[in-house]
Amino acid sequence: MSDIRDLLEKVRSGEISPEEAEAQLKLKPFVDLGFAKPDTHRGVRQGVPEVIYGAGKTPEQIKQIADALTEAGQKTVIVTRLDADKASALDMTKYYDVARIGVYGEIPSPDTDGSVVILTGGTSDLPVAEEAAVTAELLGNNVTRLYDVGVAGIHRLLAHTEEIMNAKVIIAIAGMEGALASVVGGLADCPVIAVPTSVGYGASFEGLSALLSMLNSCASGVSVVNIDNGFGAGYLASMINHIGGKN
Amino acid sequence: MSDIRDLLEKVRSGEISPEEAEAQLKLKPFVDLGFAKPDTHRGVRQGVPEVIYGAGKTPEQIKQIADALTEAGQKTVIVTRLDADKASALDMTKYYDVARIGVYGEIPSPDTDGSVVILTGGTSDLPVAEEAAVTAELLGNNVTRLYDVGVAGIHRLLAHTEEIMNAKVIIAIAGMEGALASVVGGLADCPVIAVPTSVGYGASFEGLSALLSMLNSCASGVSVVNIDNGFGAGYLASMINHIGGKN
Amino acid sequence: MSDIRDLLEKVRSGEISPEEAEAQLKLKPFVDLGFAKPDTHRGVRQGVPEVIYGAGKTPEQIKQIADALTEAGQKTVIVTRLDADKASALDMTKYYDVARIGVYGEIPSPDTDGSVVILTGGTSDLPVAEEAAVTAELLGNNVTRLYDVGVAGIHRLLAHTEEIMNAKVIIAIAGMEGALASVVGGLADCPVIAVPTSVGYGASFEGLSALLSMLNSCASGVSVVNIDNGFGAGYLASMINHIGGKN
Amino acid sequence: MSDIRDLLEKVRSGEISPEEAEAQLKLKPFVDLGFAKPDTHRGVRQGVPEVIYGAGKTPEQIKQIADALTEAGQKTVIVTRLDADKASALDMTKYYDVARIGVYGEIPSPDTDGSVVILTGGTSDLPVAEEAAVTAELLGNNVTRLYDVGVAGIHRLLAHTEEIMNAKVIIAIAGMEGALASVVGGLADCPVIAVPTSVGYGASFEGLSALLSMLNSCASGVSVVNIDNGFGAGYLASMINHIGGKN
Amino acid sequence: MSDIRDLLEKVRSGEISPEEAEAQLKLKPFVDLGFAKPDTHRGVRQGVPEVIYGAGKTPEQIKQIADALTEAGQKTVIVTRLDADKASALDMTKYYDVARIGVYGEIPSPDTDGSVVILTGGTSDLPVAEEAAVTAELLGNNVTRLYDVGVAGIHRLLAHTEEIMNAKVIIAIAGMEGALASVVGGLADCPVIAVPTSVGYGASFEGLSALLSMLNSCASGVSVVNIDNGFGAGYLASMINHIGGKN
Amino acid sequence: MSDIRDLLEKVRSGEISPEEAEAQLKLKPFVDLGFAKPDTHRGVRQGVPEVIYGAGKTPEQIKQIADALTEAGQKTVIVTRLDADKASALDMTKYYDVARIGVYGEIPSPDTDGSVVILTGGTSDLPVAEEAAVTAELLGNNVTRLYDVGVAGIHRLLAHTEEIMNAKVIIAIAGMEGALASVVGGLADCPVIAVPTSVGYGASFEGLSALLSMLNSCASGVSVVNIDNGFGAGYLASMINHIGGKN
Amino acid sequence: MSDIRDLLEKVRSGEISPEEAEAQLKLKPFVDLGFAKPDTHRGVRQGVPEVIYGAGKTPEQIKQIADALTEAGQKTVIVTRLDADKASALDMTKYYDVARIGVYGEIPSPDTDGSVVILTGGTSDLPVAEEAAVTAELLGNNVTRLYDVGVAGIHRLLAHTEEIMNAKVIIAIAGMEGALASVVGGLADCPVIAVPTSVGYGASFEGLSALLSMLNSCASGVSVVNIDNGFGAGYLASMINHIGGKN
Amino acid sequence: MSDIRDLLEKVRSGEISPEEAEAQLKLKPFVDLGFAKPDTHRGVRQGVPEVIYGAGKTPEQIKQIADALTEAGQKTVIVTRLDADKASALDMTKYYDVARIGVYGEIPSPDTDGSVVILTGGTSDLPVAEEAAVTAELLGNNVTRLYDVGVAGIHRLLAHTEEIMNAKVIIAIAGMEGALASVVGGLADCPVIAVPTSVGYGASFEGLSALLSMLNSCASGVSVVNIDNGFGAGYLASMINHIGGKN
Repeated sequence: MSDIRDLLEKVRSGEISPEEAEAQLKLKPFVDLGFAKPDTHRGVRQGVPEVIYGAGKTPEQIKQIADALTEAGQKTVIVTRLDADKASALDMTKYYDVARIGVYGEIPSPDTDGSVVILTGGTSDLPVAEEAAVTAELLGNNVTRLYDVGVAGIHRLLAHTEEIMNAKVIIAIAGMEGALASVVGGLADCPVIAVPTSVGYGASFEGLSALLSMLNSCASGVSVVNIDNGFGAGYLASMINHIGGKN
Repeated sequence: MSDIRDLLEKVRSGEISPEEAEAQLKLKPFVDLGFAKPDTHRGVRQGVPEVIYGAGKTPEQIKQIADALTEAGQKTVIVTRLDADKASALDMTKYYDVARIGVYGEIPSPDTDGSVVILTGGTSDLPVAEEAAVTAELLGNNVTRLYDVGVAGIHRLLAHTEEIMNAKVIIAIAGMEGALASVVGGLADCPVIAVPTSVGYGASFEGLSALLSMLNSCASGVSVVNIDNGFGAGYLASMINHIGGKN
Repeated sequence: MSDIRDLLEKVRSGEISPEEAEAQLKLKPFVDLGFAKPDTHRGVRQGVPEVIYGAGKTPEQIKQIADALTEAGQKTVIVTRLDADKASALDMTKYYDVARIGVYGEIPSPDTDGSVVILTGGTSDLPVAEEAAVTAELLGNNVTRLYDVGVAGIHRLLAHTEEIMNAKVIIAIAGMEGALASVVGGLADCPVIAVPTSVGYGASFEGLSALLSMLNSCASGVSVVNIDNGFGAGYLASMINHIGGKN
Repeated sequence: MSDIRDLLEKVRSGEISPEEAEAQLKLKPFVDLGFAKPDTHRGVRQGVPEVIYGAGKTPEQIKQIADALTEAGQKTVIVTRLDADKASALDMTKYYDVARIGVYGEIPSPDTDGSVVILTGGTSDLPVAEEAAVTAELLGNNVTRLYDVGVAGIHRLLAHTEEIMNAKVIIAIAGMEGALASVVGGLADCPVIAVPTSVGYGASFEGLSALLSMLNSCASGVSVVNIDNGFGAGYLASMINHIGGKN
Repeated sequence: MSDIRDLLEKVRSGEISPEEAEAQLKLKPFVDLGFAKPDTHRGVRQGVPEVIYGAGKTPEQIKQIADALTEAGQKTVIVTRLDADKASALDMTKYYDVARIGVYGEIPSPDTDGSVVILTGGTSDLPVAEEAAVTAELLGNNVTRLYDVGVAGIHRLLAHTEEIMNAKVIIAIAGMEGALASVVGGLADCPVIAVPTSVGYGASFEGLSALLSMLNSCASGVSVVNIDNGFGAGYLASMINHIGGKN
Repeated sequence: MSDIRDLLEKVRSGEISPEEAEAQLKLKPFVDLGFAKPDTHRGVRQGVPEVIYGAGKTPEQIKQIADALTEAGQKTVIVTRLDADKASALDMTKYYDVARIGVYGEIPSPDTDGSVVILTGGTSDLPVAEEAAVTAELLGNNVTRLYDVGVAGIHRLLAHTEEIMNAKVIIAIAGMEGALASVVGGLADCPVIAVPTSVGYGASFEGLSALLSMLNSCASGVSVVNIDNGFGAGYLASMINHIGGKN
Repeated sequence: MSDIRDLLEKVRSGEISPEEAEAQLKLKPFVDLGFAKPDTHRGVRQGVPEVIYGAGKTPEQIKQIADALTEAGQKTVIVTRLDADKASALDMTKYYDVARIGVYGEIPSPDTDGSVVILTGGTSDLPVAEEAAVTAELLGNNVTRLYDVGVAGIHRLLAHTEEIMNAKVIIAIAGMEGALASVVGGLADCPVIAVPTSVGYGASFEGLSALLSMLNSCASGVSVVNIDNGFGAGYLASMINHIGGKN
Repeated sequence: MSDIRDLLEKVRSGEISPEEAEAQLKLKPFVDLGFAKPDTHRGVRQGVPEVIYGAGKTPEQIKQIADALTEAGQKTVIVTRLDADKASALDMTKYYDVARIGVYGEIPSPDTDGSVVILTGGTSDLPVAEEAAVTAELLGNNVTRLYDVGVAGIHRLLAHTEEIMNAKVIIAIAGMEGALASVVGGLADCPVIAVPTSVGYGASFEGLSALLSMLNSCASGVSVVNIDNGFGAGYLASMINHIGGKN
């Protein structure tokens, strides 16, 4: 958009014709595959990997989108929510099975000093936590994993007070009653991204309990993403962790 | 029921007639006021106060029930969920305005050594907490009040670790995310009665958030009563606190 | 915490250095397995079995946690929500198939006189009831099982009035309309732990109907645990049943 | 509709013209007041009172509809959900304030031998119970009122076993956990119409708890009407009570 | 209970001892199988078949309960919610596969003149409709089946106005929007038992839409049973259809 | 947007400078009042009235927005959800009190031949119906009002079969069970816009019952707007009624 | 209905007997197959294909209904929600696998000039979109498919502003947050039919999130059909697209 | 906690006694007012204002807490959710009536360069937006207000593309369908804090619609706080805006 005036100047100078200018104004920053229109600009412009949400897409669709992105200059293409079955049908650079994430192209290295601290309430939250962790790592972050530190054994959490109080950004992941977010939010001085998980049974109602609990956190600095949305948390944490710039 | 054989023996010995026996078997252990059938047995038998749920009853109805209970030998009659307005229309022995509890007759003294420890997450939970506290006191318990010790400032709670670890029974009261129950449940070795409150707004959905959170507590030893049910928690805590007998 | 002064005295006396004291203050009462941080203190301190929640954990994870607990001195390790398939992959002391509970180490004997009375509304509630019953037994309690005594055939319940009125603690388990808790709560003079089950169909909404019904019980002394949470009920019942001490 | 052939015969015989026949076929069995189209046929045909739902209607609208029905030959017009304020603005034959029902015209006498038995769980259910009772009375039924016989004091209910077992039709009204319907359904051999009420607080969710509980009743012969729908229950009970004919 | 006086007279006359009388008063009208306590009185007393809810029971449990009932004198034992698989493992007199009902013993004939009219909104409601129909037939009723007469093609329903207006009791079964109950309720002068079904998708929320719709029916005389509860509707319809006595 | 090339041609021809072109490209088709940014283009371009949603706005805010729109050339400004109190504080051309709609400027006449047919299930639905009706009238449509034709008295609806079968577009408005939409949808050959209303009580859950019912309509051609959204229905009906052009 | 007078005239003239006339009046415009009563009139009268909802029907039932419709003169019979498995068991003219639609008889050609524009938020919405598209095509419409234009990449949507602003009717299909409908509704001047899909996870609650979002759209001209109801949207769009008549 | 070793060193050196050390270790970083335990450390340590949640507290309670904080060295005390009535009873430095925020002590100046960009979907969202804006300002941030830029008039939003694309952190506030968050999230490269509001009616269910919509946002970088939680959003935005340090 900041290029509009440049374009118009070129029209005035006759460098390009109005027809060409119109075409360029309409130039779609995406590839149209019919069933999908992957964005080819953001990644290239920002130098970060582009992401494909793998659920509900066939391996063929995933491959076509990945190819289109690669052709458009994308160095790394991340595919999330990718079942091991689908992954095995694709020729990827790497597949993280707990995180259910696959990668085409380069595996990026950390490009910023800060670290994303990821906590889980229990062992069953691991798949969501790893989705967040691998996402953050692939987006150039160091990650500190503190798993199974749920509030029912508060000493396990307090043993990590130092990591929590010194963090630049925290991801707190929990199912069941989701109390972890509030306790961590009270200890930390940094943004806490809360991820409710569908871990639990009965009145957990597939994560609703943890979701409501986290939304009602009386600790300040806590915000929430969708149930089991490890990717979203990892992405946002990376955004915050990169404030102040990359190395 | 253990008196059935006595009764039958009296029939055999001709002490009473079958007609009388049948009448006694049907003897109703309650007074029939038409609109209400207050129980006159339990209190007299157990020596504990009887309780009237004041919401949805007119002052006249409350008075009639209280009179019936008093006539049946009840020394103390507790009226819960009693608005100050209704209370002022009744000639009661005492009215606790924060707890919205009124009393007819004797104010009982503690009759057991243990203490009911009551914690709240915030200041707004006070009416529910006082309903629990006054109920427990009127049922013969000492009460320890630890208010505004919510988990978002975990140090406020940990400052009371000793009271929590030494308690015989605990009532944990919280609205919003209701995380207090889990943290307390993890610290305590005694039964924790969790009371969700309707304190909060938005996604607290009138206490639903705290309710679900408490039901999903990953701490063992925690059970839950209805939203804002301070009375129920106080009553149950008294029951547990009296195990082992009264002084 | 009561050991803090001891520790400080040792620092003053030069028995240990400040560095050592700090380390001990930070000593984690749990084993860090990375994916899990099992608590090794409570069980050893209290002499009761430690519990692993089996759902969402691999047999390997279960084994590692159990081994860690055993090494830390735990005599009995209970694994709940353990599928028969997983159980068969583990070398356990005993496996209760209806209750879906497995045990490593000693099977404890009752260590208290009282008895936990467990009632169910129907036959389909058995798995939850057995989870509660086996949990209570493994924690040292005698258990009285009264199954299929739902309120729609009230005479079946009333036939057990004596057991109910003499109980020290009761677990009332029911799906569908969950009315059992209220009727039992009205008959009993002891704490009643209500367990809603997901038994039912249609408007039972996976146990929601029974859950709400039990939370709204107009009988005093009733509290509620999560849907299908037989373990939680058994654990809490054991806590209450042990008040007054072990044999 | 059974008159179609009559009508057609009259057309063939020339008694009436096709035009007249068509008009009669289209004859609307209601009066069109613009804002309302009250049914004038059913009441006249069946000799039972017609009913106006008073909520959401102005006194003027109620009066116009009542007048239209009276003019159409209706001897009794019942107005339900009528606030005392609106009632005082109307010149009615009688107003039942607890039931919030007003009547224009004759107050009918019982015209059948059976009796509608109405039970409530508590005192706060009275307005709904009276709506049911007055409705049934105005439709020609004798009514037996058994109020405040909730299941938490099961002896109060069992004291009325005889009335319950001998009833032709029962209305069971309860809020909170709504367990009354199941227990009564188990005792009775006749249809039980369950009416959940919005009595309660917290997790009663304005009657949802009692509604779900009643829908899930494991007793056979129980069906449910809307929350607080005393009128609907009274109307249906009258229908069942009149099977076999009026006196 | 009406036999209490007889019993007491026998005690007085010395015909039986008080001990015997007490035992008889406690005589359980059910068989205790441990996992189940089937009622053996009602069926024998009323001469109607007893019913076993098959879901959640093993074939062995079903067989044991059926045997106990048969031994207690029951001529017909109905098993509902019985999968074809389980049925094939049992040696039953008859199995209705659409209705998923199995029968042990005699198949009863109609014993009353009236007919139960059953309507469905669509073809997919058939399993629920057949559960209701077969239940009603096995309880001694003639059944009129009017299937696929949903309100979106109102002429299909109006073609049966006569059956509807002349019915003694109607069962209206529909999923999706459940409007059938209201339209039928408006046409009929008899009790209408509405059965919401889980037929539909999306915002039908497994039958919730039809359930709410039916509960809110503005037609009088309509009551509702649980989602997909064909059995309950058939049972209640039989009760109503038998008012006035059997042939 | 179709003007982009024109603009660019003018840049090339030097008619306007690139700076001017950029400014024009950014020209905001709305007025920025700080608290509001009313759209001034659509109305002027299409010659239809612009609409202000009055709820949650102060009379001053409403007046400022209306003035801005009028200054921008708008001939008619409609304000919906306007309480009588607010309306009386504003100097409007006309106020429709049942519809709660106020108008500034010209009251438009019908400008198309078709008619919007509006049906309601009951009398209490009138405010929503009038909101729809007045909206449609102010947007240039003739409106046919058929009120209180709910399905529980199907003959009232069938008496209007002709209007329904000949309509170009229909608005079906109903609370409670919302069955009207399905029956009308089955009779009509035109689009039916269903409006659930919050009329009802208990399990109507503020319109949820009618909403779900309408969304699940098994009649084709039915779509749904928000609960009580008479305006939205009137607006959409006008859109459809104007297909084929204005007079 | 407009034929009633004709019929009556024939009765008067003796052309047909009253008995015949009555029979004709009762002539059912559907075929009664017992389990289904397919409508044979509408399609024949309007010349459009008739539709069978395939879910919950056996291949045999589908075939019988299709045969009945064909025999009644239907040229095209559409079967929706048809699994590939069922389709392969039927001898159909064509099967659309993504749309899960099968066709018997003629594949119609477009018979109107307008075009139905269909947009989806993502690739996973394709099955619903194709159900809508194929339905519209089979009902005689041209369809413009614009897939994967979700609002999170607003430029992809804006690239199609022209198609959107010139459309006669639009179908906006989206899962997750369902924001597409509002943005499109704001850009378009024609009716927008919003279809929420069950695409998503966690707090999308099987499409509830998108459904509520679309119902609350602040854009005028938007109405909503059931979750995943591509057929309903295609049918309604065709209705609107045919206003003004067929070619 | 980092002071533990210092403390221990002092014990060793005899500077302080073990008793003193223990007391200091237990020193509560809050003031105990009985009904409240305000945190006095965080504010003083970090130099930011402390915040009191005003809802559910009496003016007297607010005053006592504020005094305690002031005495503890707090320069600015913010009171949120403060009704004008309560505010007028308190002697505050400043009261923001739209934001319902009151301040004791200094009004801070911006202490960082970045700016918090706040967008709202409509005018009715202003109270929530101002709560966020005033909170952010009082915590030392510059705020850019872009109100009434809802997606139904996408040009209003696109006119601010530059502010959105250059922002360091954005707060997107919307009720009804809550689509604003997704569109903004797609345009922005910075964290977007989404605040659902209870603005709307009917199926907005008091903000549930916007909440679910925002949680399901398909744009990356979006997280959500509680319904109407302007304060929480302002606080978190300030946290993010201060990353990199204060001026």
